[in-house]
Amino acid sequence: MDSAALLDLLGNENRRRILRLLARKPCYVTEISEYLGVSPKAVIDHLRKLEDAGLVESHVDDGRRKYFSIARNLRLEVNVSPYDFSTKSAYSASPNLDITSWRYVSLDIKHTGEEDEEADETDAEAESDADPDSETLPDLAHDLRELERLENELSMAQRWVQGRLTETLDRISAHFEGVDGRFYAELIRGLAGGPATPEQLSRRVEAPPDVVADALEGLSAHDVVKRDGDEWQLV
Amino acid sequence: MDSAALLDLLGNENRRRILRLLARKPCYVTEISEYLGVSPKAVIDHLRKLEDAGLVESHVDDGRRKYFSIARNLRLEVNVSPYDFSTKSAYSASPNLDITSWRYVSLDIKHTGEEDEEADETDAEAESDADPDSETLPDLAHDLRELERLENELSMAQRWVQGRLTETLDRISAHFEGVDGRFYAELIRGLAGGPATPEQLSRRVEAPPDVVADALEGLSAHDVVKRDGDEWQLV
Repeated sequence: MDSAALLDLLGNENRRRILRLLARKPCYVTEISEYLGVSPKAVIDHLRKLEDAGLVESHVDDGRRKYFSIARNLRLEVNVSPYDFSTKSAYSASPNLDITSWRYVSLDIKHTGEEDEEADETDAEAESDADPDSETLPDLAHDLRELERLENELSMAQRWVQGRLTETLDRISAHFEGVDGRFYAELIRGLAGGPATPEQLSRRVEAPPDVVADALEGLSAHDVVKRDGDEWQLV
Repeated sequence: MDSAALLDLLGNENRRRILRLLARKPCYVTEISEYLGVSPKAVIDHLRKLEDAGLVESHVDDGRRKYFSIARNLRLEVNVSPYDFSTKSAYSASPNLDITSWRYVSLDIKHTGEEDEEADETDAEAESDADPDSETLPDLAHDLRELERLENELSMAQRWVQGRLTETLDRISAHFEGVDGRFYAELIRGLAGGPATPEQLSRRVEAPPDVVADALEGLSAHDVVKRDGDEWQLV
């Protein structure tokens, strides 16, 4: 979902409290209203916004009571640095994601669920997921602990990378005089995503195409970028 | 800084636009006001809030004009899942962080800056950072590209872990009947962070201590947890 819409939703303390509550257990409106000390009308209003965004869903139980719960996995990441303000939100990645093909990151984790899936791939027990006895509770508790530690290390790794990115942009910027250094750093960063024409790059860095074209010529004298037909790329 | 305060700040579209602008270049109030189409008074108000939170800082240039810029590196992560609503915010990690000591994550990256620091550690050029010629622009551009790709892989890894965590909590929950499965999964997760007394755990999972104590006895029959003095831990 759209990061801006998500930040607008999460910018409200009561909506955050509702999400925290629903992450513990599915709740009905009166429960939420009493827990938060907020009128049922206001709770209904918050729930509607969360439901419209797909963050929350509801189902009616046997006693015809309507329970709300969190609908799905979602992650939001916000980066703030002297060179960057960016937001990224995404649903969780597929369990079948090939994590061994990554170039820079290796994860050393023996995930019980995964192991089983691989072993069962070709035999009749492929649907073993549905059978809770296929994995013992101690195994699952072990997985849980590993995954939580992995998550903490990944988060630390992200913060380390953020620091290195800023440092690298500072150094690039220091190669040039005055305010322009920042602009050159921006251009190099714009090309880090792949080759681009001056027009495409001018949209990435939000500067006029002729200014970008001049700057690219200047950078090519430093052997940082080169032209290939209409496109420019990092050397 | 506090995640809640940060989400409150970022929940405003104009403040997000100001941050996006300042990440491109330092600006003064009139510039921001014209760019955003918002009154200078409103811009000043937003800037004050961002400054109070330490996200933005200002300096006065030779022409006595006050420029605003982003003050530092900061990351915010928000996790939303049927079992979790959590927010984490942190400043960027130290460049000296020992990333080789991690248990689950390995980063395969040859960072030019790092390499130099190690080589220079014991000689007189330790302050080579201040000399922009110590690293060529093509080297720095190469670093930048690697770091951006690393960042994307880490982000993907986080989303993969989020999916696995939810799946594991689903499986734990399926071992128990009805609504309680969720509570047991919560308890196991609460202990994933380390041993705890029933009182400490009762705060972690927000349930009465006697309910937690009963549930722990039940879990110990499944060989998932064990008691060690006053504390309980995962087996």
